[in-house]
Amino acid sequence: MDHKHMNLLVFSGDYDKALAALILANGARDLGMSVTMFFAFWGLMLLRDPAKMSLEDKTIYEKMFSAVTPQGPDQLPLSRMNMSGIGKYMLVEMMEESHTPQLADFLQGARKKGVTFYACKLSLEVMGLKAEELLPEVEVLEVKDYLQDAVKADLELFI
Amino acid sequence: MDHKHMNLLVFSGDYDKALAALILANGARDLGMSVTMFFAFWGLMLLRDPAKMSLEDKTIYEKMFSAVTPQGPDQLPLSRMNMSGIGKYMLVEMMEESHTPQLADFLQGARKKGVTFYACKLSLEVMGLKAEELLPEVEVLEVKDYLQDAVKADLELFI
Amino acid sequence: MDHKHMNLLVFSGDYDKALAALILANGARDLGMSVTMFFAFWGLMLLRDPAKMSLEDKTIYEKMFSAVTPQGPDQLPLSRMNMSGIGKYMLVEMMEESHTPQLADFLQGARKKGVTFYACKLSLEVMGLKAEELLPEVEVLEVKDYLQDAVKADLELFI
Repeated sequence: MDHKHMNLLVFSGDYDKALAALILANGARDLGMSVTMFFAFWGLMLLRDPAKMSLEDKTIYEKMFSAVTPQGPDQLPLSRMNMSGIGKYMLVEMMEESHTPQLADFLQGARKKGVTFYACKLSLEVMGLKAEELLPEVEVLEVKDYLQDAVKADLELFI
Repeated sequence: MDHKHMNLLVFSGDYDKALAALILANGARDLGMSVTMFFAFWGLMLLRDPAKMSLEDKTIYEKMFSAVTPQGPDQLPLSRMNMSGIGKYMLVEMMEESHTPQLADFLQGARKKGVTFYACKLSLEVMGLKAEELLPEVEVLEVKDYLQDAVKADLELFI
Repeated sequence: MDHKHMNLLVFSGDYDKALAALILANGARDLGMSVTMFFAFWGLMLLRDPAKMSLEDKTIYEKMFSAVTPQGPDQLPLSRMNMSGIGKYMLVEMMEESHTPQLADFLQGARKKGVTFYACKLSLEVMGLKAEELLPEVEVLEVKDYLQDAVKADLELFI
């Protein structure tokens, strides 16, 4: 699988979908594939560094939005059965019981294994997020850059 | 990128997901790619022409369904944080502040740039929608037509 | 289309999305394509056999989770407008009116037509489900097996 390439467009900001995306990314790297993850819209929440949240140079809506949306992997809700956090708490407990790493662990794994992280420029602008608020290795790219990478990939998914 | 083809299956009827799909479609056309969008289930709501809503020849369920589901791009809700429309209002305001075109603009762009729009025949029947209620250039196709186009594409996504 | 292969990663446990996945699977088999469906997370709910639900050897969280999550195709909710089941009831009624087969029928069709069903090992562990609780022909595979199949496919979707 050495010359195979996977491209994931991560639109979702749900804990379980981000988990699926990162499990795929880790697995593909373990098989020797190259992996690009392009984060857009809610997917950007996963890449936020909680320690770097800034409200400077933001409009009122952008400040509100920054404050009420999740900051980093631990704050993402479930795509269903979240039930104000109870369902997510249960799922995380069940993951611990079955000795499954948590979302933050899979994120660290993907970073160590050389998964390439891109953030969508347009999404950052719309949501009022700045590149400095994200993990340091994230590069900001445009939609056309995503398309050029995805078209050449052997496996492309919208998550 | 001239001989590359993108096929999007748009299942979702959410404002933000439709926005993502249309941004990809516009971007791919700008790069010279050919683009097919196949709309199924909730995705059909984007293609409804609000001026052409009809209740004729519909069963009671179909009439109710036609009335309570979104009619056209402006009425689509957000996939999350919609909060009875408050979250969507905020997002649309933030898009205006950052001078991003709205969903309806991206839809017009895709139409002008020659994106091909297909509607799923089975979905229309199930949801009690008629081809005459959709944008005029939308062609109604079957699932097997979608599959034949998607299999040949260089990039296929389910949105 | 005889030598074409479709690979679907079914993450969602929603009635309408499962319907879309199974309509695609049936259609692809009708065209002579080979089809693999890999079920992960909520997608596993579709494969549960209601008659085989077991609470043995499960932790408290796993028992709760098994009890409150859907068991088999008929219990899946809609991805939107579910409205405590009213929206789903309407959709199922409209499907009957337009003589569309139900989700369980498309599932039986896919089984008869030779669609290959795989369940994600990690997801089963996290959710506390056992292979014996699923339809008998479902084989349990790891993420790397999914990736090896998907990379070779002509059409891969994340649903």
